[in-house]
Amino acid sequence: MAEPTPAEFLSDFAELSRIGATPRGGVDREAATPAHAEARRWLRSWFDRNGLRTRVDRVGNAYGLLEFVPGAPYALVGSHLDSQPTSGRFDGAYGVLAAAHAAVRAARAVEAGTLTPQLNLAVVDWFNEEGSRFAPSLMGSGVYAGKLGADAVLATTDLTGVSVGEALGAVGMAGTDDPPPATGYAEIHIEQGRILADEGVQIGVVTANWAARKYMVTVHGEQAHTGATHMAYRRDALVGASRLVLAAHELTDAFAPGMLLASVGQLSVAPNSPVVVPARVTFALDVRSPDPDVLDQADKRITAEFEALEARGVVTVTVDSVSLRPSTSYQDVGIALAEAAAADAGLSCRRMLTMAGHDSVNLKDLVPTVMLFVPSVDGVSHHEAERTEDADLLGGVEVLTAVVSRMLRGQLQQRGG
Amino acid sequence: MAEPTPAEFLSDFAELSRIGATPRGGVDREAATPAHAEARRWLRSWFDRNGLRTRVDRVGNAYGLLEFVPGAPYALVGSHLDSQPTSGRFDGAYGVLAAAHAAVRAARAVEAGTLTPQLNLAVVDWFNEEGSRFAPSLMGSGVYAGKLGADAVLATTDLTGVSVGEALGAVGMAGTDDPPPATGYAEIHIEQGRILADEGVQIGVVTANWAARKYMVTVHGEQAHTGATHMAYRRDALVGASRLVLAAHELTDAFAPGMLLASVGQLSVAPNSPVVVPARVTFALDVRSPDPDVLDQADKRITAEFEALEARGVVTVTVDSVSLRPSTSYQDVGIALAEAAAADAGLSCRRMLTMAGHDSVNLKDLVPTVMLFVPSVDGVSHHEAERTEDADLLGGVEVLTAVVSRMLRGQLQQRGG
Repeated sequence: MAEPTPAEFLSDFAELSRIGATPRGGVDREAATPAHAEARRWLRSWFDRNGLRTRVDRVGNAYGLLEFVPGAPYALVGSHLDSQPTSGRFDGAYGVLAAAHAAVRAARAVEAGTLTPQLNLAVVDWFNEEGSRFAPSLMGSGVYAGKLGADAVLATTDLTGVSVGEALGAVGMAGTDDPPPATGYAEIHIEQGRILADEGVQIGVVTANWAARKYMVTVHGEQAHTGATHMAYRRDALVGASRLVLAAHELTDAFAPGMLLASVGQLSVAPNSPVVVPARVTFALDVRSPDPDVLDQADKRITAEFEALEARGVVTVTVDSVSLRPSTSYQDVGIALAEAAAADAGLSCRRMLTMAGHDSVNLKDLVPTVMLFVPSVDGVSHHEAERTEDADLLGGVEVLTAVVSRMLRGQLQQRGG
Repeated sequence: MAEPTPAEFLSDFAELSRIGATPRGGVDREAATPAHAEARRWLRSWFDRNGLRTRVDRVGNAYGLLEFVPGAPYALVGSHLDSQPTSGRFDGAYGVLAAAHAAVRAARAVEAGTLTPQLNLAVVDWFNEEGSRFAPSLMGSGVYAGKLGADAVLATTDLTGVSVGEALGAVGMAGTDDPPPATGYAEIHIEQGRILADEGVQIGVVTANWAARKYMVTVHGEQAHTGATHMAYRRDALVGASRLVLAAHELTDAFAPGMLLASVGQLSVAPNSPVVVPARVTFALDVRSPDPDVLDQADKRITAEFEALEARGVVTVTVDSVSLRPSTSYQDVGIALAEAAAADAGLSCRRMLTMAGHDSVNLKDLVPTVMLFVPSVDGVSHHEAERTEDADLLGGVEVLTAVVSRMLRGQLQQRGG
């Protein structure tokens, strides 16, 4: 079989992008929805046509296996096909398809005798990277890396009370296979920022992730009639929550530009009737920094804001959960391998941090991991207008192919490890 | 047949309160839900047992008819069985059951020859007074009074896209009957404030309603990644909306205490994902005053707040709809009749305004209308803890019986009209 061509990559990507497509060029493929399941079926069919054997584990991660060395562990390469609601078509899906093409190109080199593998190879499509329907994000890779329990994940419910297990079953995405054991991992993704585009650099080699702290917060007030309750008697949870939304936003000004991000992306009002003073508001607060000290300072200030709001004597605040994703480094051996692979492909590269979370953040705590970026036009992300130029998509496939080839040769093993 | 006793009223009310009951003593009977339909079936069965003939019109208003004078118009008396989500058991339901008991007691007097009616009598249970699931509120009475079109009402959808017509059909609450023509209307309701309780007065006679202006507002920002988009590049719709929630709240301090209420009870974030900067926030702003001039001044200030937010250059604001419920008076003939009825029953009364909207606000623009209040413990409203003492419930039934008896004698017709 001939190896897949750049033209085939672009036509495959166009086909994949039509699944769950939105009118303005994006996709809506939230985890375990029918559109997500259709994208998954498309990938399985692609695996079938290209000689990869599909396995699906309990939490809905799918793997396409290429066995070269019976009994050997696997080099794993992939990303995710799920999306935010009404988001861009590149986030995750590009990385899965690039991994699939890179894997088949490496397999052709093995067949041609130009590459002698020491490992087997698996393309992976992680379940629920995005975390918009089911929290937390990075779910499937979290189970793979042992950070989350499969049973707890399967019991996690969305806002309508449907569990991950029920949702996977309903759309035919559940499996029973054991996941393949990995000895290294590689992922490519759009940058979701504008550094590469602004500097005209073709490939980003990720050295560490920003630290992130995520809070689920509830403001508790008292339900009352908007038309019959005097202001003095009200304990309005939404007024309290609005103060915290603004406080978190303004907190970022207390630090050097670019050192702190703070956002409330999700907020729910109960009972949410036009004529009822809100009794309860729950929201997700997302705070990130490249500097763990800044993140800790921000945490202290946020806690002080919660206390200051309670001290007004009107509402109470509970922090329902806090989770920290610490800033940790990708292994030097992977960084060096990625830079060598970029050179193999004749593309410029630079080292950088990732602000966003990726499944590779979980995998790098388990095995040596490579994380690559391609440029994003204007840095647009989690938006239908997200875009990467065809040339950059194809350049990324070239570099990822070189990364996979080097991984198969055993070059991602820890030196001396 | 004997007339229903106070003990029967309390046991009927306890039975009705069990339908859609919540653990903390309230009810959840939002419009056209199964619990609301069950309460309606309970009422029809009560009508059947007590000799009232049921009619249901196209928009789900139910009437229990007592015909005394063939061909004569009707004295109408009633309220509503729907509730806010997780609300109190008295709001609306008390008025429907009090009307039913008052009507049957009047019918017994007609049978006994102690009351000679000039009119027929109908108990009414209006559809969707609350407006929490389907906006606007006062829906069924709005159609009856000719303020809303039945076709437009039937096509109105809830947040999940289900229309009023579909919802009524699904729970068996739709009808095809013509509504009975009214020549006068009476309603009794809990006060939802603390004036009667604080002053130890037993009956409130409503002379006018507060003016209310309701805005549906959307703040438009730009969807982005919470973890990868620098603060300077964000157009966060929730940050903008939070400024408006606080501005509306603080606006009330600009007027004398008790002269202005402002609340945002309903607010929806899109796409509402923990890791997406909000693209769009839609909210319902409810502003009320006993003084139309204050309401107009508030409107100017609110418009100025929208403009000030836009002037920051980050988000845009659209006012999707504004509706004004003007302050208008109940007819003098009804006020005098209500005061005479309270004297008939030996109860103290005072004149007062209604802050909340009631179906009687629609009816009074069509026919002479009486609106009565009974005391609310601590003024609690739209809350499971809402409560009225049994003695006050029974006192209200006495006065309403006297009102209905006087209406049947033709005493609510406009003098000289």
